[in-house]
Order: sequence, then C-alpha cells, then structure tokens
Amino acid sequence: MQSLADISKILGKYGKFYILAHKYPDGDAIGSSYALCRAFQSIGKKAKILMEDEIPSKYTFLERYIKKEDFEPEFIISVDIADVNQLGESLNKYSDKINLCIDHHITNKNYADNTFLDTSSASASEIIYALINEMGINVDKGIAECLYTGISTDTGCFKYSNVTAKTHRITADLIEKGIELSKINRILFDTKSRKFLKLESLIYNSLEYFFQGKCAMVFVTPEMLKQCNIMENEFEGIASIPRAIEGVYVGITIREKSLEVYKVSVRTSEKVSAVEICKQFGGGGHACAAGFTFEGKIDNLRMEILSCLEKKLCL
Amino acid sequence: MQSLADISKILGKYGKFYILAHKYPDGDAIGSSYALCRAFQSIGKKAKILMEDEIPSKYTFLERYIKKEDFEPEFIISVDIADVNQLGESLNKYSDKINLCIDHHITNKNYADNTFLDTSSASASEIIYALINEMGINVDKGIAECLYTGISTDTGCFKYSNVTAKTHRITADLIEKGIELSKINRILFDTKSRKFLKLESLIYNSLEYFFQGKCAMVFVTPEMLKQCNIMENEFEGIASIPRAIEGVYVGITIREKSLEVYKVSVRTSEKVSAVEICKQFGGGGHACAAGFTFEGKIDNLRMEILSCLEKKLCL
Repeated sequence: MQSLADISKILGKYGKFYILAHKYPDGDAIGSSYALCRAFQSIGKKAKILMEDEIPSKYTFLERYIKKEDFEPEFIISVDIADVNQLGESLNKYSDKINLCIDHHITNKNYADNTFLDTSSASASEIIYALINEMGINVDKGIAECLYTGISTDTGCFKYSNVTAKTHRITADLIEKGIELSKINRILFDTKSRKFLKLESLIYNSLEYFFQGKCAMVFVTPEMLKQCNIMENEFEGIASIPRAIEGVYVGITIREKSLEVYKVSVRTSEKVSAVEICKQFGGGGHACAAGFTFEGKIDNLRMEILSCLEKKLCL
Repeated sequence: MQSLADISKILGKYGKFYILAHKYPDGDAIGSSYALCRAFQSIGKKAKILMEDEIPSKYTFLERYIKKEDFEPEFIISVDIADVNQLGESLNKYSDKINLCIDHHITNKNYADNTFLDTSSASASEIIYALINEMGINVDKGIAECLYTGISTDTGCFKYSNVTAKTHRITADLIEKGIELSKINRILFDTKSRKFLKLESLIYNSLEYFFQGKCAMVFVTPEMLKQCNIMENEFEGIASIPRAIEGVYVGITIREKSLEVYKVSVRTSEKVSAVEICKQFGGGGHACAAGFTFEGKIDNLRMEILSCLEKKLCL
C-alpha cells in the first residue's frame, strides 16, 4: 500500500478534484469530505463534493466552509466509502473511475486505482487530518470544525471502543485551531427533534422486560412512525434505547416493516454476544450490535427470540 | 502559589495521608481522590479516602483499585473541594486541619495551609494526573481508570466548553495505560435506571410548547416522583430535557416542592440569557443554566414566566 507521502505526492500533480461521499451521509462522511475540499480550495485548487443525498440539517453549519463551484475533474477521490455500492444511483457512473480511495473500514473492497486504508483510525476524518498535514496545508478553524464533527460523530463523542490515543491527540490539535466544540456538540448530540421525542415516548410505552429485567424489548410499528410523521433517516439510534436501561444485558428492538416482515435489532453488553443470537435467525453483525429480518407472525418471532435468550440469560 | 514541584516535595516528606472528597461525590471527586490514594499506596505509603456520603453505585467499579486501611494521618489533603462547607457534617472536624487543597474551582476559598489551584483544568483529575507524574509515580491501569472517570464525568464525556487541548492529551496518555473506556462510558453515560426512564416518560407527557416552539416547559410533581419511587439524587439531569428539543431556545422545568412552592430550572441556548430571566424572580446562575424558587399559585408562575419570555422570544 502507498504511504501518505506517496498519496500527497500524487495529489500534488492535480488541480481539479471531485470528492465522493457515501449515500445517507453521516458526520464522518460529511466532515472528512468537507475538510479535504476546504484544504484543496485553501491552496487555490478546485474541489467539489458529490453525494447522493442531501446532508441532514444538523450538519448544515459546515456548509459555510466550502465554496460551491462547477468544473470537470482531473482526479476523483472517494472518502469513507468501503464499497462502490454505497455511492448511490446518481454517483454510480463514477464507480470505475475513482483514482483514490481514503477509508478506515476493514470491509474496504479495494475498488479504486489507489487506496489508502487505515483501519486503526476511528474515523476517516483522522486520516484526512494526517493527509492535510502531510500536504503541508494549514489546518484552519474551518477545516478543524469539519474534522472534529467527523471524529466526534464516528466515536459517539469519544465514547465507543474505536477511540484510541491518536483520536484524542488529533482532537487536542483541532481544539488549538479555535473550534467551538461545545456549540458543535450541542448540535450533534444534545438536540432531539420533536418527532423523535414523540417516537421515543411511544417506544417507551411499548417497553417489556423479561428474565428478571436482563432483557428489554420494544416495538416500532408503521402506525407509530405515521403518528410522529417521522422519516426513515430521522430516527437513527432507537435500537440503543432498550439496552441502555440499567440491568439489561440484551436489548431487542422489533420494527414492523410490512405485513409479517420484521427487522430486529439486538444490542448487548459484554456478557452476551449479539451476533451469535442473530446468526440463529440468519442475520449478522458485531459482538454488541447485530440484527436480522424475520418473516412470519409476531407471536412466533417473540417466542423464538425469548426461547433463544432463555438459554443465554437463565443459566 | 506553590508549583506542582513544591507540592510534590512536601508530599514526599510524609507517609500517612487522609484524602477528603466533597459530600454528594461526583465522578471527579471520586476519580481524583481514588487516583491519588492508589498512587500513594502503590509506593508503600498509607492513604485513606474520607467522604460524607457513600459513592453512587455506578462508580463502585473503581473500589477495587484502593485498599482500605485504618491509621492516624500525618497529612490531610482535600481534592476538588472549593469550600469547607462541602465537607459535610462527618468531616467538619477536619475543616481547619487541611494541609493541602488541590482544586480547579474559581470559587476556591483558600482554606488550607497550602493550595494548588488550577482553574484552567476541566477537572481535578487533570491536576492529579500532573501531580502523580511530578511525584514520579507510575500511572497504572487502575490510576488511569480513576482519572478517566473524573475527566469524562466533569466534561460530560468531552462535550462541555471546559474541555481543552490538555484534557484530550491527558486522556490520550490514559488510554495508553490500557483503560477499558467503552465499558466505563457505558456505565457512566449510557445507562438509565428503570425509575429514571419512567419519570422521563411522565415528564414528556407534561411537555408544552410556547412561542412557536422556542420555549418548552415541563412539570415534575411529587406524585410523579412517588409513582416512579425515585429519590432526590436519582434524577439529576432532568432540567436539561426541555432545552434539548430542536428549535427550543428556552427550556423550563417546574418542580413542585411542596404546596405552592416551586423550584424552577431554566436552560437556554446562546441566544437567551438564563440568569437574566431568573434574576427577575430573585434567582441566579449562569448564562445557559439558572434557577429560582417561586412561592404562589402555579397559574401565576406560568403567567409570569411566559410574560417575561414573551419580551425575549417575540421580538
């Protein structure tokens, strides 16, 4: 694999960049692409970000940091994209034309001419920080706020197990660039939409406990979503609600997608493997977060999950 | 003021320490005192922590890091205590016998023989980290987990405006000592008691919006607390619920303390001053968080608050 110095040398040869971010962009997709775009623009190069979807409204405070311009690219970069199937329909035409991929996902498909993959980074933004430094471009407050947004969202504001010493050292550097971190964190983490609040309240009403409180289960129905007038991309994070209750080892969120089709999210503490549970139902995921789809009657689904959990929680 | 090197030299002369923490101990009081105690014990000195109240159950995972021993002290240290009135009744007898105070509060009353005050530190734990290094004591995983607990709780897991580059650099060092940060953060930040959840749900049911959603108001009654069987120290943080709603500039939490006596908490975004509002009702606080007590009929309280806010929110 090429080093960051090699990548920097390659980028130095070009002046017009397209930067592709993935569909349903999250804070790291936005933060890393915006930071790189601003870095290029700050040294007089042309750069433009392309993504399938609009950025969620909470990230719009970053928009002032980039200039929008139209031009044809000499070099196409993807950031935070493991697989070209994450480009979305409107960017599909670039899927075999990507000159450089910068990513941190272990599942990266190696689809670009050049790839810089660092799976030890909690976020793509950490890699972009190193790259901007390697290119000798000054990290100003704007770039720093973009990168901070990427790092803090991909780490749950420094809470998740992907956080490393490097994550914190880079953040320390960004703070010295004058970022307004408490304002950003309020936007990112301490603001709930009224719709979300209403849904949360309905979800709490559906809460059931099993096995002396070691398992908590909640339901989300199409009627509840309709009642809250809430869209698909407006309620991320609900799957973590039941596991966050004191004493709960296994949190189950059952979402009715259509008639007798259920999407089940399983979140666990260290004591129980979420992926082991979900594999039994044909699903997959990680040790603490996994999921599966179930087709059949809700009563059967409940019974099957509970009988699977009984063995794990009642030893 | 003495330097950390001076303090370290003084501590080097003694072998038996009492470490006092404040009443209603929080994560920083516990983290900083436990870390210092373990540091002394790790080099063969005797150390004992004294505090008025038991530590909240979520912090008990730190108890394994200190040995409990009985002895008479040669030197008494207070950590994270701005004023001796925070010692509590059982420790009051030490109030004029404190040889060294280590603190980060700007309100520190300078009550001890020696004081090391660093108001640029977000937590007392940051100062203890520097002191332990100054004393040449190895920071092991145990000390690191105590300090991380202090730093992360006093900064709301790195979200608040008191966070500095130094906060993140120290945290990077602590991570290299092998702390289990995601486990600690789950205990500290992602666990809600069933009682709290129930109260939250009742609070959401009481939610009212005013001035095109710029103000949100919630009520907490003694009946609600009784219904949830929840104690005074088990629902900290509820005052931040209404302000966290998207579009809300002013969040008001009204708590009925007794017949016609109300405790009102006001939380605001940068656009409105909370303390200005509360001063009009004889209260006080900070720019974004303030409060007051109201005696009278609830209808009058509501009317007075809303008429005060009307001027600020309807310009």
